Amino acid sequence: MLEAIRSRRSVRRFTDQAVSRADVAAILEAGRWAPSGLNNQPWRFLVLRPGDGRAERLAGCTKYRHVVQRARALIVLLLEREAMYSEIKDRQAAGACMQNMLLAAHGLGLGGVWLGEIINQEFQALEALGLPAQRFELAAVLALGHPAAKGRSSRKRLSELVLEEF
Amino acid sequence: MLEAIRSRRSVRRFTDQAVSRADVAAILEAGRWAPSGLNNQPWRFLVLRPGDGRAERLAGCTKYRHVVQRARALIVLLLEREAMYSEIKDRQAAGACMQNMLLAAHGLGLGGVWLGEIINQEFQALEALGLPAQRFELAAVLALGHPAAKGRSSRKRLSELVLEEF
Repeated sequence: MLEAIRSRRSVRRFTDQAVSRADVAAILEAGRWAPSGLNNQPWRFLVLRPGDGRAERLAGCTKYRHVVQRARALIVLLLEREAMYSEIKDRQAAGACMQNMLLAAHGLGLGGVWLGEIINQEFQALEALGLPAQRFELAAVLALGHPAAKGRSSRKRLSELVLEEF
Repeated sequence: MLEAIRSRRSVRRFTDQAVSRADVAAILEAGRWAPSGLNNQPWRFLVLRPGDGRAERLAGCTKYRHVVQRARALIVLLLEREAMYSEIKDRQAAGACMQNMLLAAHGLGLGGVWLGEIINQEFQALEALGLPAQRFELAAVLALGHPAAKGRSSRKRLSELVLEEF
């Protein structure tokens, strides 16, 4: 578990190989088991495949257009407004849900990247998806595929993150 | 990975056994590797042990006082305001960080519970910790220990969470 958490990186380049329905289902299953405040489970999922006109329109809503276009599957992560009870906690829960899905993808040998910039264009993106903004908040988009390149990233040292020795 | 995600539950009852420093360090290490927007890593950690007066004062800031009091270690998850760039995305990142820590604890055989209600009393809690509210946002508290009882929980069916067949 610790090794999987530590070795996961954002992957933005994918091969042409399709992502199987079984893999998508396993990733959604991981998202489904995330914790949420009062166990309200406000997350909703929309899966898009290449060739779906909505995926192409969604690509036009972010400066990471090429990542959306290259992805072999997209999971749009939404919050159902009626199920929400706290903006802060529901958004934290969305992050936990996304992290479960990223870890699941990594565990399956897939690559993925959490696209957050797209929510700056939330209403345009929801319109591209044909989803009503009164009903959904766009939390993020997960772009998935078989990795064509290794992701690279680093982190601050733990000593910079703890307020005091423990 | 998938099995670990699926089998994790909130644990609120702990034995008297201490949580080792090595285990706390491994859990923080997992939190450190969470993804964040622009890799800004806004999270900061404060570890409290039983007997620390701050832990006792913190217990007075939540209706889950007994969970805080019973915990053998507490990880206070904070966001450093100066490192934040987006309230939504930084709070999502806090959720991803917390989920990494919960999964790491589970992987180590420990139990933990994400305490979110306490942020309703954010300023009182920060004061109990002696932390300046101008500098930190309180994201959550993770209560940890060796499990004395199994957690139980359920989730909605996946068919209730996907907007359409995939």
